[in-house]
Amino acid sequence: MATGSRTRQERAEATRRAILDGAATAFDAAGFGSTSLTDIAQHAGVTKGAMYFHFQSKEALARELVAEQFELLPGGAESELRALQRAIDLTHRMAHGLRSSARLRAGIRLVIERGSFSTPDPSPYNQWIDSVRAMLANAQGAGDLKSEVDVGDLSTYIVGAFTGVQITSQVRTAREDLHERVADLWTWLLPGVVPARRLARFAPAGSEELWAALEDGAATG
Amino acid sequence: MATGSRTRQERAEATRRAILDGAATAFDAAGFGSTSLTDIAQHAGVTKGAMYFHFQSKEALARELVAEQFELLPGGAESELRALQRAIDLTHRMAHGLRSSARLRAGIRLVIERGSFSTPDPSPYNQWIDSVRAMLANAQGAGDLKSEVDVGDLSTYIVGAFTGVQITSQVRTAREDLHERVADLWTWLLPGVVPARRLARFAPAGSEELWAALEDGAATG
Repeated sequence: MATGSRTRQERAEATRRAILDGAATAFDAAGFGSTSLTDIAQHAGVTKGAMYFHFQSKEALARELVAEQFELLPGGAESELRALQRAIDLTHRMAHGLRSSARLRAGIRLVIERGSFSTPDPSPYNQWIDSVRAMLANAQGAGDLKSEVDVGDLSTYIVGAFTGVQITSQVRTAREDLHERVADLWTWLLPGVVPARRLARFAPAGSEELWAALEDGAATG
Repeated sequence: MATGSRTRQERAEATRRAILDGAATAFDAAGFGSTSLTDIAQHAGVTKGAMYFHFQSKEALARELVAEQFELLPGGAESELRALQRAIDLTHRMAHGLRSSARLRAGIRLVIERGSFSTPDPSPYNQWIDSVRAMLANAQGAGDLKSEVDVGDLSTYIVGAFTGVQITSQVRTAREDLHERVADLWTWLLPGVVPARRLARFAPAGSEELWAALEDGAATG
């Protein structure tokens, strides 16, 4: 019986994943408004009954996909990297995820399209700003940001600029040039906020550690 | 007869303006997908017949409103200001317009929401990038931008960053803090792209000339 119930649990998990993948594919392609629960069930290859068992509404699926993007945030194990480089690397990890994961693309499209216009909700923006602010406060404490920089305003700027840079890259190049455009953001931002003698410590295109991790497929780890 | 036909023409113009104002109000509030031609006729206070006489489709109205944003671009009369300051001022004129004009808000919402997701169209982004690039090329020729800066990439970055900064300001503060956030963009960008000895020439929060013009109500002139 124990084996039977574990199998059942594993199958439930697989169904849940399939539903989220199906919802991500549908939202990424058509947006929230134009996607029906029937579309999602079809994309997921599950019955509508199975879908309702896991998610009661399109809204619940959207909430889950929006929440997933925050799994990109660095976990407990403290990296050896300086905090400011971790913030730079976070934006490239995000860029990499947007290029490779329909789940992340769907979550971000939901935030920008739906969370900005149809039913405005500042909380995903604020959650990113708070996470970046924590890294920048650490960086300022270590002397890597000029003391006159307001880290709250700077993190708000970084989240805003990244949001627009990725929209522009998506529309113009289907995100082909996204890493280059994110590197531009940091290349032109760092001289304004980092003391000149420390500038050379930072890699606007992402650290070697980041790229090694991305090549290992640990993009969201 | 001449007087009669001028009156008729003036009335047609007034109806056309009312329809565009009505469409702007509706698109700004609900987006393209959720707005019907009936909504627009109601907002405009005109009959559907009058509306069809001027605009054959919702699509035609959207195209017109998207095109209008480019009227913000500086006209023929060359300003006394340096080209880079004109680019800075353009972003603040845009910020001012977004805060004060439903027509401009509708045009920008249509570009971001519809032109980025539903029916992706890079041309409005490219038109802004080309306009900014022309100013920056002029600035680089005058020695106000470092010679190693690629003005094509920099104008792409500025348009992208502005797009995201204004979305973030809209969602978080209903654009209350938009001028401050745009000033942050330039405060932190200029040291990366302007030769140090020229930095003091530029006002990240917009020139005195700009603010005098905005107070005169010549925001879109």
